[in-house]
Amino acid sequence: MKDKLMKMLEERENEMIEIRRYLHEHPELSFEEEKTAAYITEFYQGKDVEIETNVGNGYGVIVTIKGASEGKKIGLRADFDALPINEEADVPFKSKNEGVMHACGHDAHTAYLLILADCLIQLKDQFKGTIKIIHQHAEEQPPGGAKSIMDSGKLDDLDAVFGIHVLPLAPAGTVGYHSGYSFNGRTYFKLKIQGVGGHGSSPHKANDAIVAGSYFVTAIQTIASRRVDPMEAGVITIGSFDGKGSFNVIRDSIEIEGDIRYSNDESQEVIDKEFHRIVNGLEEMFDVTCELTYTPDYPPLYNDPELTEFVADTLNGVQDKDLKEVKEFPKMSPSDDFAYYLEKIPGSYFYVGCTPKGVEKPYFNHHPKFDIDEDAILVAAKSVGHIVCGYLDRK
Amino acid sequence: MKDKLMKMLEERENEMIEIRRYLHEHPELSFEEEKTAAYITEFYQGKDVEIETNVGNGYGVIVTIKGASEGKKIGLRADFDALPINEEADVPFKSKNEGVMHACGHDAHTAYLLILADCLIQLKDQFKGTIKIIHQHAEEQPPGGAKSIMDSGKLDDLDAVFGIHVLPLAPAGTVGYHSGYSFNGRTYFKLKIQGVGGHGSSPHKANDAIVAGSYFVTAIQTIASRRVDPMEAGVITIGSFDGKGSFNVIRDSIEIEGDIRYSNDESQEVIDKEFHRIVNGLEEMFDVTCELTYTPDYPPLYNDPELTEFVADTLNGVQDKDLKEVKEFPKMSPSDDFAYYLEKIPGSYFYVGCTPKGVEKPYFNHHPKFDIDEDAILVAAKSVGHIVCGYLDRK
Amino acid sequence: MKDKLMKMLEERENEMIEIRRYLHEHPELSFEEEKTAAYITEFYQGKDVEIETNVGNGYGVIVTIKGASEGKKIGLRADFDALPINEEADVPFKSKNEGVMHACGHDAHTAYLLILADCLIQLKDQFKGTIKIIHQHAEEQPPGGAKSIMDSGKLDDLDAVFGIHVLPLAPAGTVGYHSGYSFNGRTYFKLKIQGVGGHGSSPHKANDAIVAGSYFVTAIQTIASRRVDPMEAGVITIGSFDGKGSFNVIRDSIEIEGDIRYSNDESQEVIDKEFHRIVNGLEEMFDVTCELTYTPDYPPLYNDPELTEFVADTLNGVQDKDLKEVKEFPKMSPSDDFAYYLEKIPGSYFYVGCTPKGVEKPYFNHHPKFDIDEDAILVAAKSVGHIVCGYLDRK
Amino acid sequence: MKDKLMKMLEERENEMIEIRRYLHEHPELSFEEEKTAAYITEFYQGKDVEIETNVGNGYGVIVTIKGASEGKKIGLRADFDALPINEEADVPFKSKNEGVMHACGHDAHTAYLLILADCLIQLKDQFKGTIKIIHQHAEEQPPGGAKSIMDSGKLDDLDAVFGIHVLPLAPAGTVGYHSGYSFNGRTYFKLKIQGVGGHGSSPHKANDAIVAGSYFVTAIQTIASRRVDPMEAGVITIGSFDGKGSFNVIRDSIEIEGDIRYSNDESQEVIDKEFHRIVNGLEEMFDVTCELTYTPDYPPLYNDPELTEFVADTLNGVQDKDLKEVKEFPKMSPSDDFAYYLEKIPGSYFYVGCTPKGVEKPYFNHHPKFDIDEDAILVAAKSVGHIVCGYLDRK
Repeated sequence: MKDKLMKMLEERENEMIEIRRYLHEHPELSFEEEKTAAYITEFYQGKDVEIETNVGNGYGVIVTIKGASEGKKIGLRADFDALPINEEADVPFKSKNEGVMHACGHDAHTAYLLILADCLIQLKDQFKGTIKIIHQHAEEQPPGGAKSIMDSGKLDDLDAVFGIHVLPLAPAGTVGYHSGYSFNGRTYFKLKIQGVGGHGSSPHKANDAIVAGSYFVTAIQTIASRRVDPMEAGVITIGSFDGKGSFNVIRDSIEIEGDIRYSNDESQEVIDKEFHRIVNGLEEMFDVTCELTYTPDYPPLYNDPELTEFVADTLNGVQDKDLKEVKEFPKMSPSDDFAYYLEKIPGSYFYVGCTPKGVEKPYFNHHPKFDIDEDAILVAAKSVGHIVCGYLDRK
Repeated sequence: MKDKLMKMLEERENEMIEIRRYLHEHPELSFEEEKTAAYITEFYQGKDVEIETNVGNGYGVIVTIKGASEGKKIGLRADFDALPINEEADVPFKSKNEGVMHACGHDAHTAYLLILADCLIQLKDQFKGTIKIIHQHAEEQPPGGAKSIMDSGKLDDLDAVFGIHVLPLAPAGTVGYHSGYSFNGRTYFKLKIQGVGGHGSSPHKANDAIVAGSYFVTAIQTIASRRVDPMEAGVITIGSFDGKGSFNVIRDSIEIEGDIRYSNDESQEVIDKEFHRIVNGLEEMFDVTCELTYTPDYPPLYNDPELTEFVADTLNGVQDKDLKEVKEFPKMSPSDDFAYYLEKIPGSYFYVGCTPKGVEKPYFNHHPKFDIDEDAILVAAKSVGHIVCGYLDRK
Repeated sequence: MKDKLMKMLEERENEMIEIRRYLHEHPELSFEEEKTAAYITEFYQGKDVEIETNVGNGYGVIVTIKGASEGKKIGLRADFDALPINEEADVPFKSKNEGVMHACGHDAHTAYLLILADCLIQLKDQFKGTIKIIHQHAEEQPPGGAKSIMDSGKLDDLDAVFGIHVLPLAPAGTVGYHSGYSFNGRTYFKLKIQGVGGHGSSPHKANDAIVAGSYFVTAIQTIASRRVDPMEAGVITIGSFDGKGSFNVIRDSIEIEGDIRYSNDESQEVIDKEFHRIVNGLEEMFDVTCELTYTPDYPPLYNDPELTEFVADTLNGVQDKDLKEVKEFPKMSPSDDFAYYLEKIPGSYFYVGCTPKGVEKPYFNHHPKFDIDEDAILVAAKSVGHIVCGYLDRK
Repeated sequence: MKDKLMKMLEERENEMIEIRRYLHEHPELSFEEEKTAAYITEFYQGKDVEIETNVGNGYGVIVTIKGASEGKKIGLRADFDALPINEEADVPFKSKNEGVMHACGHDAHTAYLLILADCLIQLKDQFKGTIKIIHQHAEEQPPGGAKSIMDSGKLDDLDAVFGIHVLPLAPAGTVGYHSGYSFNGRTYFKLKIQGVGGHGSSPHKANDAIVAGSYFVTAIQTIASRRVDPMEAGVITIGSFDGKGSFNVIRDSIEIEGDIRYSNDESQEVIDKEFHRIVNGLEEMFDVTCELTYTPDYPPLYNDPELTEFVADTLNGVQDKDLKEVKEFPKMSPSDDFAYYLEKIPGSYFYVGCTPKGVEKPYFNHHPKFDIDEDAILVAAKSVGHIVCGYLDRK
């Protein structure tokens, strides 16, 4: 069946590209992907599969393909939301929705998975087991779609879950993998520090919120520098320190906002605990009142080592002219809500190189000029196709 | 002559009050006191004095009264500008210029000095020496009027200069004095710290201006805590920390604004030096570029000890039912550009109590509900009158 | 009586100088002044006075001189302990007790007071009232002798208390006074910060006490810079940061010791409160355990304004060739346990200039080369004599 | 030849263990390994090899084994110094040199390599190429022995270099590898901060070195927290803050000592630059003088990816009952001067599990109770033997 699948994919490469371009022209923001979801649903109309729409907290679509007989249950996920970015890439299929752009490659993800799913539907007499195609909404915008899809219970029976992300870290033809923690987790916070205002010449009659806030910023550095395992990432960025005021009036309050990243669960725990400690300590130290919003977004993404080895070995083992290289990729500092699937289901999220041909320094994902080598779409389809075949056949 | 003067002043008390109320109803902001200056000039029309208008960098008025023969030259100053405050005091002569208010008592200063001047003009055959009446504009707004009046050279020949400020620290009838440094000096600063922006997850590719700014705030504390003589005042208030931004974007720059106070010249020098050191050190320490605006406003006000003792002794020595008590007042934390006169001319700036009768906790100067006991106006006129008589007669 | 007293003092000037030199040669440390106290007691033997020895927590001596009839009760205090300093002054009567020196002038204090007391004893038929001569031990070493003498109750009946300190701020012949708060109060503290030790390469497994201690030092700066009234003194010096260790081992604990000064009771309260806040906040912020010893020593010394004015007026009013000038002195930054008397008894502690003749930059008290112009001893005796006479005669 | 070598090694396992126990009983400190080097040299006496002694800056020994014909040149390194630790392990062959202990397993390294070398000498007719046996002194004590051996030029002709370290991260039978940066680099620093001493009550007359030092500690946190790539390790530990003094005397100087770790060259560069910046900035900021000793010790250890893959593949490929598992090990936070070889010669430094049987939480290297499963010695010998055979045969 594998050979047949590969052949079918090769034959339908143009179709994938067309779908990708159509989606690229019609991007929709997270949680607003009504038309994209309708387009996907439409694609499956009339096919012998179960289609579930509006899954989770948005426009999620799950398509269940049942094989000839009972067997393993595998999930494949592609996200389909776009970003609030004004496209600057010079492509003929430029975004027609101004200010919104498929700048992260989710168009390619969806394109390959639609065609791969269709091929698997056609071949469903030839394999054992069940394949759930997860078209996920709202990856870009916490709380994201993945968690709610997991919470729906519709994936509870899966034995494994896989997905890919296109990345211009390598040319089309290269597939990357990373075992264990692979994407960082992220937390958003907002801290209001309330002191007492007053006149600049009489600090003793006031309680200066800017001073308390500044000591907070210096104290918070010790979490990354002394508390987090130096072999792991732990980043606390204060992106906003809102303390604008009159030069000679002591501010009664200031507001800080920021972003926390961590590469594993242990670092997240440490940061959570120490961050709250510092806020509490600040209240006591400077006699201020703190109002803290602390919202963990996506957890660190943990690729199951055994299944990641399976991915690497499987793709290394195939003889496929389109899969030129399989290699380890470094950890990624961004976050992806694929992490929620992997919290409960073993699996692996891997990478498909997409650097445009002839480009030495490609624009990275989320850049207004981000672009991909469309050859990567077939690579994605084939890679995941190999994994599906390999996994369903596994003992 | 002294007794005659006192009698004249007593008789014209109502007139002083009327002038004060008129001015109170028609306040004008610093550097915009066109009508007030015209009113003052008009007052002197037809009197046998030299009138100079538009003195200095605004509407300053200097009136020169020459006595019967040559003698000492003494200056008397009253300021006449008002504040951008919306009056909330419940008085029948409330400000008719909305948003502007004589909330610092300059109306009273001008009122007493006009009448005192008029009396002195009438008595000018009876004294030796010259009296310069300095109606000063723009005390409230740096760079103020005093410095420019001094720079005009028109006061170069003075032997001494005196002035008073009404203060609700004591009831009408009390006169306060303070020898040596008496009002704080003040400096305004603005500091732009330029780093390099970037994404919150990759601090190593950016250079976080909020972090540099926060360390600046903590470092600057050591100037007041370790550098300034603890027996002297030294205050650095950062009233504005403008670092508002997106939570997950590293700020490329922030802007800090603040206010510095110091009670003597030595502390000013120390603060100047150390402040610049910390800014320079910050540039090196955090690889940021700093743009500093550092503008000393008014210097610390230094009352000549010998002339202050003369004021205290003179007023203590008179038998005057309206001058009930003469006592030392504490140092004041605000600033006053009378300091510029005292930098070059010996003199003393002293206080006239003005707490409204029956009020235990009076509203202080600059409060929207600030009010005075109008009895203080006569006290001011008499006190300064005594000083003039005493000084011109001195050996 | 006053004239007679002055005459007697003048006649006994040499005796005062001899006593001072004897004491200078035989200095004793605080709480160890056995021989000095015996010398003093011996002096009063056979005189018609009540002598109490071992008063308070050491060798304090109180001598009560009763006048002809009941009247005001006045206390005069001189301290008699020396310092652990090796004398370097080049004087013929250099300390014979190596490592101990009368480097603060207490020898002069005791010398004048012995002779003044003797004269007052001889004149006791001529005045009304009671004079208590307080020869106080252990001023230099907290908890000092004054508090325990007050606690003994033996001074409970005093109406006023006076004392002087020799200071090389002016030549002999000058007497200084200061109204209100005049000497700073002082607190000693020791802070042990307990974290968790570990290897330098693994900070996340330890809890670095040096880092917590350093943040403590930076945070504590805000008390002086933002909490204490800038018109008042508030100083926190950390004299010891004991964190010596191996370069690659994370310290589990460090110890900080320091000294706090404040010029009035309000500042002391603020510092007490904020210091404890910062220690508590530090525990929470850095998850460390703090062990704090916080020992207030001498309180701020507060000269009764009314009695200080009495001192100034009295001394200004006398015609005495030895009292050349009476003037205001600045606040002093050191501490003196005379403050304890003044907490309960109105009084004034004033200054007697003692700069050696011909010396422009004299060595200050506590310097190994400290020396005085011995003319100051008679000035001290006369000044206090004038005060006694004036006070006992007061209405 | 490989099979023969393996057989020989198996037969001489007891001999390896005896050597290891002998060395364990006779440990010598870095740069003092005179007897150990003599023992090693003695071992090679009479064998047909070139022996060089006193190589580099100490007792290094290089033994060159030439094969039947020209070919690849490979280096094998084992270190032989011990640590200043008092052994607490309960073994019959406990250290007889009190206070010195083979607590890092260098005894085992030397034992396996001596026997492996002897076997290779016996088999030298059967291989092409040259093998240099590097018995290295002083790994534990910077500047270490490796750098000087490299500087001697005696290894300039090597094509590859290999070595192993025993680690109780896995049982005997497991071999670990890590590609790329694998051990951290390390820098030692000492910083003297010179201010101006003074009395605790007069900070403005001094320049407090403890305050400057504490701000240094807080500022230095930003290097790890904001400057180093969060995906890489960067640790700055201040192990010593020597600022002990009298509580009321302002320290004129303090001394800080510490340890810096970094996982790659880029992080080292960043830390170097920013550390010096902060020191320079501190001088300006606080008007202090800094004396900095900054001594990079061992660089980050970089395992050649291609040769590491070769190690993993080779060991994975052999059928050997003693090599039960080959797997990736994590990065190590300590440093090893094997890094110096790898700066110039491609190679790989890998791990041999040595957790004592039945022990769940083994004592780690450098612990006074550190012990190994002696089965690991044969594993080490065989692993390196396989690598030698594989490498010399490589195209």
